[in-house]
Order: sequence, then C-alpha cells, then structure tokens
Amino acid sequence: MEKFDVNILGCGSAIPTTRRNPSSQVINLRDKLYMIDCGEGAQVQMRKMKLKYNRLNHIFLSHLHGDHCLGLIGLISTMGMVENGGELVIHAHPDAEKLFRPHLDYFCADLPFSVRFNGIAPQKHELIFEDRSIEVYSIPLRHRVPSCGFLFKEKEKSRHIIPEMTAFHQVPKAYYNLLKGGADYVKPTGEIIKNSLLTKSPDPVRKYAYCSDTAYSERIIPIIEGVDTLYHEATFCEKEKPRAKETMHSTAKQAATIAKAAGVGKLLLGHYSARYHDLNPILTEAKSVFENSFLVQDGYTFKI
Amino acid sequence: MEKFDVNILGCGSAIPTTRRNPSSQVINLRDKLYMIDCGEGAQVQMRKMKLKYNRLNHIFLSHLHGDHCLGLIGLISTMGMVENGGELVIHAHPDAEKLFRPHLDYFCADLPFSVRFNGIAPQKHELIFEDRSIEVYSIPLRHRVPSCGFLFKEKEKSRHIIPEMTAFHQVPKAYYNLLKGGADYVKPTGEIIKNSLLTKSPDPVRKYAYCSDTAYSERIIPIIEGVDTLYHEATFCEKEKPRAKETMHSTAKQAATIAKAAGVGKLLLGHYSARYHDLNPILTEAKSVFENSFLVQDGYTFKI
Repeated sequence: MEKFDVNILGCGSAIPTTRRNPSSQVINLRDKLYMIDCGEGAQVQMRKMKLKYNRLNHIFLSHLHGDHCLGLIGLISTMGMVENGGELVIHAHPDAEKLFRPHLDYFCADLPFSVRFNGIAPQKHELIFEDRSIEVYSIPLRHRVPSCGFLFKEKEKSRHIIPEMTAFHQVPKAYYNLLKGGADYVKPTGEIIKNSLLTKSPDPVRKYAYCSDTAYSERIIPIIEGVDTLYHEATFCEKEKPRAKETMHSTAKQAATIAKAAGVGKLLLGHYSARYHDLNPILTEAKSVFENSFLVQDGYTFKI
Repeated sequence: MEKFDVNILGCGSAIPTTRRNPSSQVINLRDKLYMIDCGEGAQVQMRKMKLKYNRLNHIFLSHLHGDHCLGLIGLISTMGMVENGGELVIHAHPDAEKLFRPHLDYFCADLPFSVRFNGIAPQKHELIFEDRSIEVYSIPLRHRVPSCGFLFKEKEKSRHIIPEMTAFHQVPKAYYNLLKGGADYVKPTGEIIKNSLLTKSPDPVRKYAYCSDTAYSERIIPIIEGVDTLYHEATFCEKEKPRAKETMHSTAKQAATIAKAAGVGKLLLGHYSARYHDLNPILTEAKSVFENSFLVQDGYTFKI
C-alpha cells in the first residue's frame, strides 16, 4: 500500500507546554506533504520528524486562532532559505491574507517561491483543493471564530495488472494504462479478454478527517462517515464539560460519540488542554464510547 | 550579591535547528525579568527554564528579522491567558508597532494587560529605559536592517551598614538610609562619626551588553568598555569570513577582538549558523584572541 501517513507536529491547545506544541500536522501521501494548521514551532517539529520542507506546497489552516497559525511566517521564512522555486498555497479564511501578507512582505522578502492564499468559506462543505492524488474538502465546525476541518480523500486508484495473465495473453505494454483504467483487451485476432481476468481491484480509497477546533457537532457526521481515521479534538474530560461548552471545545466522550456515529475506523484524540499532564482519563473516557481510540503525542506518526 | 542572571532561551541564527532555537534571552535581576529578542519558541523556552511570565514587563527587540521577533505574538497570547494586569512594553524599532499591532488586535483581543510600544532609534546610543534597579541603553550595530544591541547597567547601589559599628556608636535605625547614601553620623554630643567607619562600599555596579546581529564594528567598543559580560554574535568561523561580511554578521574571532579591545570580563558567544553542529571551532577561534570566552547553549544560565 502506498504511503499515507499523518505526522503529529503539535497536539497541545492554546497554551503550549514543555511537552506539547500547538496544533500542526503533516499528511504524507507518497512523499508529497500537506500541512494542516501551523502553530508556533511547526518548522522545528518538521525538522525533528525529518519531513522535508521542499515536499510541502500546501498548508491548510482550520481557523485563525494563534495556536493554529502563528508558526506560519517562521516556517515560510526558513523554507525561503533552504528551498527553491514553485508555489506555496495557504488555504485559509480570507482574513489570513490580510494578516499575513504584510508579514510576508516584511520578513520574507525575496522568497524563491511565490505564496498564494486560497480563501476558503469555513461554513461550507466543498472541495477546496485537488491534485492528481488527493481531494481536500472543508468540514464546517462550530467554534468561537469561523472554523473548518478538512477531509483528505485519496483519488480513485488504477487497477493492478496481473503480470502472469498479461504475459499469458501477450498484452503489449502500451495497453497497460487502458487496462489499469478498466478496459478489456482486444487481441489482434479479435478475441476479447475481459479486464477482470487481467487485473485486480485497485487499492481502496483512504480517507482522513481532521476536526479541530470544534464544539460537539452532529452536523459533521454525514461528511466524515466511514473515514479510515478521524482526528477529533478532545480538549477536556467530562468533568470540564461546562468549560468545553463555554469555550466551544469538545470532551473526549463527545469526540468518541461522533466517531461512533460516523462509523470511522480509528479515532485520534488531541488538542489537549494544558491542565492534563496524565492523558489517560481522556483515553479512558473516549474508549468507553468508541474502543478504537488513540491518544496522539507530538512526534507520533499514524498510518491512515 | 543580588541575582543578575542572563538566561539563554535561544542561540541559533536565522534557521533554527532541532537543538537551537532562534534568538531570545531573559535577564533576571532580582526576579524581575527583561527579555531581549523573542524568536519563535521563546514562550516554551521560558516555561522550560521556569521563568515566570508575570515577572516580565519589558521586551527589547534588537531588530526586526523574523528570528528575533516572531515569537512575540504567541508569547503575549499565552501571557494573556495566564496573567493579570499591568503593562507590557515592547522596546523596538517603530516598524514593530505597525507590524504587530494588527496581530495583537486579531489574535490577542481582551488581554488583561495593555501593550505599549516604545519606538527606539537603533542608530543612537541613548538611554531607552530605566526603573529603580536598571538602566538600558541602545548600542548602534551594523546589520542589513536597522539594529541595536542593549547595555544593561545596574543603578548605583547603597552602602552596606556595618552592624557592629552602628551598634557601638548607638546609631538609631532611622539614620540607616542616610548612612547607606553616604552621610556621616552626628551624635547628640555633636561628635561626628565618619561614614566610612559605619559602612562598607556598595556592591559594584554590574553591566551586561548584548550585541547581535552585527558585522564587526569598532564603534561599539567605547560603549561596552569594561562590561562584566558581553554577548556578541559569532555566527561564523574565520573560514566563512566572506560570508560573514556579505550577510553582515561576525566571526568568532571578530567577536573576541571586540571583547579584548573593550576589556570586558567575559565573552559569551552565540547566534551560531545552523551549519555548525560542533561548536568547538568557534570557541577555539575566539579563545585564541580572548581567553575568557564561552559558548552559550539553549537552556544555559550565566551569572553576570
């Protein structure tokens, strides 16, 4: 199976601690990198996790709270010193350009690549980006400022050639791309060899959803239904439910309730409040609702 | 002797590494904190070094390159969540307010303290701040953008009472402040007891100079003459002297030449280029000119 990982650069919340950086993740899909959120310290975390700056061309910001975006200018500044060419795209609420363009102009003059802002509407669920391998959709969230999560969905993949069968039927290599797309093979004699004899089903399309920051919101369930892996913020334990409601964050149990209702494969918990040194209560509460729950920590990598 | 320490939060240069954060230091003078530069990660480094946010009311920025100031908004945002009241003053080039005020308004609304910018003229040597314990002077530096170092100078301290002698001469406690200021004691009989019999000299006034970023500049020598401790950037070894000249940085040997000419007590070397994993060549080159040279590392504390 081709690489599709999520790297946790930071899983803390507003107040960083000595063990947890503010929010940032890097998706690695066949060594192309896509960053989600860029809290302070993201550039150093990339270095620690040996993620190459020159593989990164897209950064998605869920919302414009400092703990999700204040690492942006430092990262771009460093990328400008170690990397050449191309374009970097920041997918974010339109305010991002107003806020960060003046800093780019001042701190990152003479970048060897261009920086483009793609303004997104956090309250819509829509396709905001696609390339040859992936589609990225916004997921409207409920928070104190306009926020959206992101659904990363691999594109339909091609079928796998069965070498023994193509050899047996003497299929010329030039036909392989047609076969991968599902076409039958017509022999020079006119005989038709069914595609299903020559190829195997493609690898399944994998999906990853990132939902942070957000209060409990059942509205997202149909959007994230059946994803392989869901990262859902779990800022608090149940005991702090009033605080979660007030600050428009989720408890671990609420995250698990969403995971269960959406029938996801695996739930990753994160965005922990600085008050939790021991994260086991968060895990226990989530597991009481959805067994396949995991705590993330800075520096962890999960396969989707 | 009362506490007067410099804490190294970050001693890297433009490109941070996994071991060295960008520039930031915190002076601790009798548990009042003064920050010099605020590179990304300064807030977490303060936490690691157990320096309390609520003791910090003054931040001095040497110049507006990202590696010296991009930790500012994150730090203030966190201070706003854990601290109450008072005023925070940013002493910096006037552009700092233009750049950071919009970010303060957006990311740090409802701070429980006010933030004031004190615009300084980096090309002047002048008093830019004083309180009861310290005076801070700007030191004009030579760099690609307007830059200044900072001279921290303790205020003149009071003389020490010699308890056996004041007891012997039956000096009332009410006179002690006058004695500390240098006055003689006049007995009720009219007899004059010389101050020098009743008190000892005050502790010496200590001075710390921070000079980064800068090309070799003899102009600073008279300003930093005789300081107890000098922090001078030593971005490069001699081998990279052309690169130092081009980027307007200093070599270790140049830093040591300045230290020697200024007759300082101790030289701290820092702002190392990311290319140096092993810092010993930097130390060796500096020591060949000025023996009392030291390498700083993130997390180190030096007594002035």
